[in-house]
Amino acid sequence: MDNFEFYAPTRILFGKGQEENVGKLVKEFGGTKVLLHYGGASAKKSGLLDKVKSLLEAEGLEYVELGGVRPNPELALVREGIELCRKEGVDFILAVGGGSVIDSCKSIANGLANPEHDPWEFHMKKAVPVKTTPKGVILTLAAAGSEMSESCVITNPEENLKRGYNSRLNRVQFTIENPELTYSVSKFQTACGAVDIAMHTIERYFSPGEDTWLTDALAEAVLRTIIKAGREAVEQPDNYEARANMMWAGSLAHNDLTGSGRRWLLTVHQLEHELSGLHTDITHAAGLSALWCSWARYAWESNVKRFVQFAVNVWGVQEDFEHPEKTVLEGIRRQELYYKELGMPTNLRELGIKEEELETLAEMCSFGKTRVLDGYKKIGYEDMLAIYKMAYEAE
Amino acid sequence: MDNFEFYAPTRILFGKGQEENVGKLVKEFGGTKVLLHYGGASAKKSGLLDKVKSLLEAEGLEYVELGGVRPNPELALVREGIELCRKEGVDFILAVGGGSVIDSCKSIANGLANPEHDPWEFHMKKAVPVKTTPKGVILTLAAAGSEMSESCVITNPEENLKRGYNSRLNRVQFTIENPELTYSVSKFQTACGAVDIAMHTIERYFSPGEDTWLTDALAEAVLRTIIKAGREAVEQPDNYEARANMMWAGSLAHNDLTGSGRRWLLTVHQLEHELSGLHTDITHAAGLSALWCSWARYAWESNVKRFVQFAVNVWGVQEDFEHPEKTVLEGIRRQELYYKELGMPTNLRELGIKEEELETLAEMCSFGKTRVLDGYKKIGYEDMLAIYKMAYEAE
Repeated sequence: MDNFEFYAPTRILFGKGQEENVGKLVKEFGGTKVLLHYGGASAKKSGLLDKVKSLLEAEGLEYVELGGVRPNPELALVREGIELCRKEGVDFILAVGGGSVIDSCKSIANGLANPEHDPWEFHMKKAVPVKTTPKGVILTLAAAGSEMSESCVITNPEENLKRGYNSRLNRVQFTIENPELTYSVSKFQTACGAVDIAMHTIERYFSPGEDTWLTDALAEAVLRTIIKAGREAVEQPDNYEARANMMWAGSLAHNDLTGSGRRWLLTVHQLEHELSGLHTDITHAAGLSALWCSWARYAWESNVKRFVQFAVNVWGVQEDFEHPEKTVLEGIRRQELYYKELGMPTNLRELGIKEEELETLAEMCSFGKTRVLDGYKKIGYEDMLAIYKMAYEAE
Repeated sequence: MDNFEFYAPTRILFGKGQEENVGKLVKEFGGTKVLLHYGGASAKKSGLLDKVKSLLEAEGLEYVELGGVRPNPELALVREGIELCRKEGVDFILAVGGGSVIDSCKSIANGLANPEHDPWEFHMKKAVPVKTTPKGVILTLAAAGSEMSESCVITNPEENLKRGYNSRLNRVQFTIENPELTYSVSKFQTACGAVDIAMHTIERYFSPGEDTWLTDALAEAVLRTIIKAGREAVEQPDNYEARANMMWAGSLAHNDLTGSGRRWLLTVHQLEHELSGLHTDITHAAGLSALWCSWARYAWESNVKRFVQFAVNVWGVQEDFEHPEKTVLEGIRRQELYYKELGMPTNLRELGIKEEELETLAEMCSFGKTRVLDGYKKIGYEDMLAIYKMAYEAE
């Protein structure tokens, strides 16, 4: 087991009606004037935003609003948020939404607290934030895990760049998780959430590391849970137990619990970034589900034991001791069938990728044939091309 | 799934050599003058204490020492610690040890920060601490889980009382977990640690609650891990992987992760408190292992499904669909055999309890026939007596 640091200080209030506590929590963490940060129309339409405003007012808190966060949250809105906060004397940022709103909230919080830097400098790793602004979340989407994670990803369309950075300061002070607030999430977005959560866990699970018995068992627990919860939430959008288990799984999948003691890399995430980079209409989770099985079929021979463990412990495949490859491939196949069952793509054609784009993708992902992704199997340009080709041709 | 709050903000530095960071961490959390709090001779003999002193000095930190914490840490030493801290201007408490030292540290930290109260008032629930002093831990024993928990138990021998209280303020700022520091823990103490960790998890697992799919799976993961890690650590005291997985399991078993969404009670812990209350030489973990299987054999019929799940998912028992009771009893039997394998008692005779004491125990545990313990099965005086009798007669 590798040395590791584990730090997930976010206070979680989980369950029905927990949003009622939002005003009290903001005050407890020192807020007096709040930036209420959200995305599009759904928070307004559902009445959640009005409810939150009343709750803030009931505690004597002032607030200003900034909506309009889009998927792949943008730098311009972050800058606008920081300016607004300065002008209005905001001392607490409250995100009402999913991963995009939370990441935008984190970037505003760090930008506001470190006025000597433009927030993009942190994303470009030209500077490191040393302070932050207290922040909280009312979660409305089980997927990205940003509500408990230390990551923060922002897109700068002017430079055509999407860049994230990890920092202890990116952990939010509290997150309110009421599964009922996700009943209205569409079947497709729910399926994307299940893929996101599974992939956060799987990528850590298939990172190099030995003898992480507990971390492995926890990751397998999260995977078995999200498989069941994701399936049931897609089938029955208002199934409380499915939504609840999915929501909690989403937070634990990305708070580092499932990677402790492993040298975790997000290899398939790297391969996917180029898909949604080239075609901005491709949803991150759809790119991941279209790629993972091909990566797995390409990489399994470099760690047969690990893939057998996955097949047996996550999918309940009967181990074939004489032909471990059969066990491995059955595990991968089950994951693929699960993605299909959720209605998610399992090849690049379904995403509209053209065969002639595959070399470009490999070129981009290898940073012009210079980058090699680490892992059980080192993945350079030729490997990337082979994986993209397999994913193009897959079922 | 019940509503719940989850809050485990302790920063964990896990692995070989992590104690090297102690000075930097104390400074990061604002410490300038440290109370170095520890137990008996072992921390001194191992050289750990000298190392810690050098590391504090290297960061320009002052310190004063208070050793002598005993198992079942005592109020008198807590009061002495508070007085010493006031006199010396201490602003950070560093516990070097296991659960007893950590609990003593927590009680000192709260007493120091709330000078208008005697620390015992908090334990007797006559007052609630509103502030605390920053505190950290270098863990030398994988067992109690206090390093990540919100509980703090202190004994007052003058009043013959052992009383704990939970508070968010009881979470320590950081814990350094180097599994190598537990190599010297005796076989018996290692076995006790494995029982402690298993029981923190099992008691939450068998508390009332429904549809906690993820929490259940995480609890089963911790249980399977501690079964393996505990066994191997007893057999091979310097097996790093066994010690490491056991240590991490100990922290997660009691930081509330394994009980989220369940109405957890520690029923068998209540039954045990009377054993070690009546005979102070009985180790808590030995009392737990002597009681659990009898409680389980008494209570399983009130939730067959849950006990079947335990047998199948924790012990890999083949489910007998026609005779679920066979599956249940086999699961309990495996847990019992495991305790025997660790060298732990599985009946009250092994602890030296006399048959004529059983009624006294039930009288004490039921607070004079007035208390009924909640759970799948409500446990009143008659039930307590029946369980104590079964545990007396058990193999």
